[in-house]
Amino acid sequence: MPPNTIGPIVRIAELEIDPSQIAAYKALLAEAVEASVRLEPGVLLLYAVSIKSEPGQVRMIEAYADHGAYEAHLTTPHFLKYKTQSAGMVKSLRLLETEPISLQAKGQISS
Amino acid sequence: MPPNTIGPIVRIAELEIDPSQIAAYKALLAEAVEASVRLEPGVLLLYAVSIKSEPGQVRMIEAYADHGAYEAHLTTPHFLKYKTQSAGMVKSLRLLETEPISLQAKGQISS
Repeated sequence: MPPNTIGPIVRIAELEIDPSQIAAYKALLAEAVEASVRLEPGVLLLYAVSIKSEPGQVRMIEAYADHGAYEAHLTTPHFLKYKTQSAGMVKSLRLLETEPISLQAKGQISS
Repeated sequence: MPPNTIGPIVRIAELEIDPSQIAAYKALLAEAVEASVRLEPGVLLLYAVSIKSEPGQVRMIEAYADHGAYEAHLTTPHFLKYKTQSAGMVKSLRLLETEPISLQAKGQISS
């Protein structure tokens, strides 16, 4: 199947983080999330959370205006800094592509 | 741990749907999602997606203003209709409580 080129696209990342590095990882991730939504017009939403009963388990919900916005995100300095500095903290990473069923939010989320 | 009473709170639901009923399930879910965000001041965001490689796998990302807004949501007519009518379609349901790391979106998401 070709990549979805008509947005928005939603992706989910499931990560397992080294428990001894979770605080440093959260700080690094929060910095990258904030820079991405502030600086990239095509990054519509990034929700980073940890699972309460499993604090090493992190989930990222990501909405991009289109496939090009996602590809562009992967080349930004803030993403590359996050990727490099978190490499030794991430024990596993599963990236899920999704098909939206319904995406609803209060207020306006737009590019 | 007591429930988080100071919002926003974010929850993730992981569902496995009977493949033979997935189209009907998606229509029912979309209707409930739209009613919830439109009618309930404390329902800030509902993103319903299916996993591309596993179409029976559905994920819901849910943001509520506070714990009371989540509790109120569970008693609404549209949620109860969804819950009743989807009962025979849902093969498994896992509800995850989360701890936000960073929640960022374009535009304003507010109650």
